[in-house]
Formats: sequence, C-alpha cells, structure tokens
Amino acid sequence: MVTLTTDFGLHDHYVGAMKGVILSVNPEARLVDICHSVQSFDVLDGALTIAQTYHYFPSDTIHVVVVDPGVGSERRPLLVTTEKHIFVAPDNGVLSLVYERETRISVRHITSAHYFLQPVSATFHGRDVFARVAGYLSKGVEVAKFGEEINDYVRFAAPKPKAINERMLRGVVLKVDKFGNVVTNITPNDAAALFGPQAPPFKLMVGSAEVTRMSRSYSEGAPGEPFAILGSMGFLEVAVNRGSAAQVLSAKKGTEVGLILEQALGTAG
Amino acid sequence: MVTLTTDFGLHDHYVGAMKGVILSVNPEARLVDICHSVQSFDVLDGALTIAQTYHYFPSDTIHVVVVDPGVGSERRPLLVTTEKHIFVAPDNGVLSLVYERETRISVRHITSAHYFLQPVSATFHGRDVFARVAGYLSKGVEVAKFGEEINDYVRFAAPKPKAINERMLRGVVLKVDKFGNVVTNITPNDAAALFGPQAPPFKLMVGSAEVTRMSRSYSEGAPGEPFAILGSMGFLEVAVNRGSAAQVLSAKKGTEVGLILEQALGTAG
Amino acid sequence: MVTLTTDFGLHDHYVGAMKGVILSVNPEARLVDICHSVQSFDVLDGALTIAQTYHYFPSDTIHVVVVDPGVGSERRPLLVTTEKHIFVAPDNGVLSLVYERETRISVRHITSAHYFLQPVSATFHGRDVFARVAGYLSKGVEVAKFGEEINDYVRFAAPKPKAINERMLRGVVLKVDKFGNVVTNITPNDAAALFGPQAPPFKLMVGSAEVTRMSRSYSEGAPGEPFAILGSMGFLEVAVNRGSAAQVLSAKKGTEVGLILEQALGTAG
Repeated sequence: MVTLTTDFGLHDHYVGAMKGVILSVNPEARLVDICHSVQSFDVLDGALTIAQTYHYFPSDTIHVVVVDPGVGSERRPLLVTTEKHIFVAPDNGVLSLVYERETRISVRHITSAHYFLQPVSATFHGRDVFARVAGYLSKGVEVAKFGEEINDYVRFAAPKPKAINERMLRGVVLKVDKFGNVVTNITPNDAAALFGPQAPPFKLMVGSAEVTRMSRSYSEGAPGEPFAILGSMGFLEVAVNRGSAAQVLSAKKGTEVGLILEQALGTAG
Repeated sequence: MVTLTTDFGLHDHYVGAMKGVILSVNPEARLVDICHSVQSFDVLDGALTIAQTYHYFPSDTIHVVVVDPGVGSERRPLLVTTEKHIFVAPDNGVLSLVYERETRISVRHITSAHYFLQPVSATFHGRDVFARVAGYLSKGVEVAKFGEEINDYVRFAAPKPKAINERMLRGVVLKVDKFGNVVTNITPNDAAALFGPQAPPFKLMVGSAEVTRMSRSYSEGAPGEPFAILGSMGFLEVAVNRGSAAQVLSAKKGTEVGLILEQALGTAG
Repeated sequence: MVTLTTDFGLHDHYVGAMKGVILSVNPEARLVDICHSVQSFDVLDGALTIAQTYHYFPSDTIHVVVVDPGVGSERRPLLVTTEKHIFVAPDNGVLSLVYERETRISVRHITSAHYFLQPVSATFHGRDVFARVAGYLSKGVEVAKFGEEINDYVRFAAPKPKAINERMLRGVVLKVDKFGNVVTNITPNDAAALFGPQAPPFKLMVGSAEVTRMSRSYSEGAPGEPFAILGSMGFLEVAVNRGSAAQVLSAKKGTEVGLILEQALGTAG
C-alpha cells in the first residue's frame, strides 16, 4: 500500500504521472490518495497533513510526501522508517511532525540512482525519484539498498503558543479548513483548564472577534455565532454552526490568537 | 468495495484519515472516491450525489455518505441496507433519495460502540464512526451486530415543481454543475409533453433569461445561446454549447424557474 | 488497470457514476484517477494531460479520456490501441498527442451498441459508452469486437512556435500549472542553443515581463524574480521561486511569447 500526499493539486498531470511510475514498477501496488491540495510550497501544511493521517493506516504502509520547493537543489531525498511506517520525502522538514510523534526512527539519504527514472529531471522528483523509489519499496526492496543512514536531517518544531503570563497565551492560526473552521495551535497541553468538563470563563481573541463560549460539537451554536471547540486534530478551533468561522472572524492562516483565562492555564509544559 | 461521498473537500486531511481507518480494519478493502466536494453542510446536495451514483455500483457495495452538520449532537448514525447495497450515513436525510428509489430497505441505528474508534471525537464521526463501521462491514461483519432496526429515521422529499395551472409549472434550480449547466427539478413526469419527440412551443424562465428552444445534445447551439435539454440526471437543464449557462442566465442553486407550455403539461402525477 | 482523465471536475457525481459503471461490468478492474480537472470543453488541455502521463503506466493499461463537448452529436466514439496501451475517447482530437508520439496505432470506431449502457443518454457518454466499453475491455473482450478500423479520425497538431528569423521565435503559453508556472510551447527542438550547458544571452517576452535568466531548478531565484527553465513536460517554462510566475507576468493560457537569442536558435526542424 502506497499513499500520496503532495502539493501538486488536481488540475495538472503531475499526480497521474507519479501514479503511472509507481504502477509501472509494481502493478500490484495499491495507491491511496491522502491529499494533493497541500498549499503550494508550504512545508508546514504538508507536515500537518501527513501527521494527521499516517498513523491511521495499516503497518508497513509506504507514505510518499512531496511538498518540495527545493526540487533540483542540493536538498536530499529521504527514506524514513518508523516502527510501523515507511516514508519517502524531501529533506526539508515535511516529516517533522512524524519525527515528533515517533520514538524510533531511522532516516536514510536516498542515493542509489539506479532506482530513479533516468534521466532525472531537475523539476519533478515526485515522478523521477520519490514515486519510483516507492514503487521499489512496495515490491519489497530492502530499505538499506537505497542509501546510508544520516542524523543531520532537517526538522523544525511546529509553532507553539507562548504563555504571556499564567493566565494568558498567545498563539496563531495554523490553518483554515474547507468548512471555514479556524484551527489554532493551542492544545490541551497548553491550557488544560480550558478543556476540563466545565470550561472556566475565557476570552479568545481571533481576528475581528472575541469568542467567549466553548462548545462540544459543531452543531451547538446560533447562526453566525463563533464558538471555541476542541477539534479532531487535537487543536483549539473556532467554528460557526453551518457557517465559516474564518469569514465571520476575518481570520486566516497566520492570524494571531490571544487567549485569556480567569484562572491559571494549567499548562503541561 | 467501499465508496466514499462526503463534504470534506480535498484540501484537508479528513478524507485521508477516513481511508486510513477503513484500511486499518480491512487492508483488502477497495476504496472508490465518489465525490468529496458536496457543498458544505448541504444534505440535499449529498442526497442528490449518492442517489445519482450508487445504483451503478456492483451488488454488496458499501457506500459511506458523510454530510454531517449535526456531528456530535444526538443525531444517530445509520446502517441502511437495500436489496443490493449497504449504506452508512448520519440520520439527517442524506439518504432520502435512496429511500425514495428503493422498495425494500432496512434501517438500523448503529449503537455497538466497540466498532468505533475510541475515544470517539465529537467533531469527526466520518473517521471515528462511519469509516470504522464500513471497515468492519467490508470484512463481512453482519449488519445485525451494529444495532437495532428503527422506523423513525429522518427523510425528506426533494423539492418538487408545482403546477400553477395545466400549462404552467414553477420549479427551482437544484444545482449548477462544473460546466455551468443549470439543473432544474423538472422531470418528464412533471411535463411529459415537453419531452416528446417534438417539443411544443414553450417558455422556460430562469434567472435573467427566457429559453424557448429544446435541444437533444449539448453541442447543438450557437455560442452563448441558452437552450433546454433533458440532462443525464433525469432533470430538465439549461445549457450553453461550450459555455456556462449559469453565467449567461445569472442563475444559481435555489433560483426559481417558470415553465409555460402552449398545451397541457401532461403531468404523470 | 483503467485510468480516468476527464473534464468532469470533482464537484459533481459524474466521475462516481463512471466508476460505478466500470466496476459493475468488472468488479476486479483497478481504477486510477489521472485528472478530472481538464479545463471544461478544452480538447487541447485534455490532449496534453493524457500525453504527459499514459506512457508512465504499465503495458495494457486502458486509458479512458473524456473531454467531449460534442457529446450527443455525430462525433464517433473511438477505441485506439498502440503498441502498449489502449484508449477509449471521443473522436475530437483529444488523442492527437498520443498519435504524434506513437508509431503504430490502430483506431476503431466503436459501434457495437450492446456494450453500451442502454438507453444511451445524449449528454453523458462518459458513463453510458466510454466507461462501459472500458469495463468490457478490462475483462479481456477483444478490441475487434467493438467496431471496425478507420483512418479518417480527427487529429490536430499542437500549436508549434514559429521562427520569425534565425534568432527569433514566436510561441504561446500552453498552460499555467497549479504553482503558477507558465508553460510555453517552446521545446529544445525549437531552440537547441538555449538549452545547452551554457545558455547564450536571450530575452523571453511573456505578458508584462522580459525574462533574461535561465535556471536549472525552481529554487534558484530571488523572491518575485521570474526566470526561464526547462520544465518536466519538455517545454520552456517561466517560473518564480516559491511564487506564481503567472501572477508576476500577468500571463495565462494563450498569451503570446517572444524569444530572441543573441545567436542562431539551432532549430531541429
């Protein structure tokens, strides 16, 4: 089984070419599209997408993750194995949240060019390198055959909220989803008190609005009224019942978020 | 075989997470994407999408339909079997047009929580409930194991056109498709005369335009000229040859439609 | 294995219906989506998409290509076989670039209506004709059973750049991809000198900009600076590092392109 996560979009032939290359190497490979609409060049968005999905797949799934603004430069192609999963991706940090989540990882620099589609273009390693390597991995070629282990791979920390004082937190909007839900980077670890059975009085400032109500489900809310909610990604979100919170709040990715509680945040850190 | 129809869109990780969950339960499951771009929260749009497709699939296909604005509320998760197909969906009417089309249906309230992904989130039952149940169904778990039959499930009637008199009908635009074709809710049952071998003189008023010509194919029309046509969904459409009728007419979902014939409509009802 | 390339988009039920029809004929068929976002009615865009992908797939893959503005008219449905691949498509030139690339082709007019879904609609041959025929082909039905060979099928030449003199070329933008890369119709055959190890001084005029730098990879460029590059499709592109060249240049499909070299172009023709 081979999953695909890219920023190639669905309007061009890129994803189709990758699928062809994998299936030419291994016609038995089972392809699963995770997402091809990662924001162009946005390595953090790619990192969030794969980190939110890979662990739901069966053991030994091969995950191809191509968000690759540095294609054709010196950035290395990687083959990463964790306890249960295998990843091929450029060495630009797109697997950072996988590294964060996993305890045992092995990272290899893919150097065995005979597994590449020759001649390798300078502009489409998704097709010429990553898809082809995934094809061979799915046929059972051992990971050690692709290259040596390295330790200096690129990793970044996802942006964490900062505690201003024991009752105040400053965070940021990580993404806006298809429904217009505004996903912040605040987790129960950052403000445990907020997520208890009974949320204390709070103010969440996002964009043009001040949110003061916590809800347990998307459907508890008056039309147009933004509320806070613990979303399925594990982050604090702002949502509107059957509407777009992003529109109501004028918020987008990168918008600053402020949280003030009437009691101590209860940070885990 | 498991098909997926949702309003989760293709820009986020949601669909990928659902696929992972199904494949973790049953790595042999064959997944088929029907559509993930149902309009957000739009249960009627979801109902139209699944009703236009499920019956083309082989017997025993499992259809997962998640358009679920009430996720996390008291709305029930359903397991529906018809003569040839199996559905899992929220109890909000999204299967109404399936109920309408089928003569023998059995509807169960899914209550066996040990088939759910624990802990069940309040915001993503597509992943935690529906995908997981579909995985077990695809492994052959009997439908009776998931919960008891019920009769008070939610169903709605699709909006039907109204006869104003024996020559006039008032309808509505059900949807605009990717090409800009304007799909009304008028069928041959509502105005048989219009769809005979030779359409009688008629006026179809939609948005800013009055359409007076019936065509048999999309390609019979001058550039920019809107015409009426019986579309593949079984509804009267307005189209423009190689153009967007919706743009030409300034019509969209919900726009009122008026039909006047020079003779009796010939309604079946 | 059956691939799908259409202009049906992902917002409607059309693609789902096609998949259902194929799988009903042959539940063992393995479906691969190449692209469903070919520009509406744009046969050249469809031709580029399939030509850039089909040859990466294994031998005997069946490619269903439906960009079909003439559906319901007299245009013929075709079954095309090349040395390694099989295609079903309307006879409107959408396979022109396949014909151009292949030396041995056989083109048949599909006439055996008992392989169609009856009654055949006048508006959705993707479902009623092409998908169904692909289903039977994937079950091993011989190509000769579908209809007779023909020679007068429609084919067009992709727009080629014109040499104004031995140092000047006039071309056109073929497409803008998801990243905003501006793909021209200029290839190394048209201006070999430009693609040598050391590009000679040149001016490439596209939209509002004059590009004078050649790059080997997308990542070599200052923010906002457009540069020329040989793209993975084999065409000269204009790109911007982590940005949209189309936006910077105000260029789109059909925009004229002028290339002036300080030395002879070195055209292959």
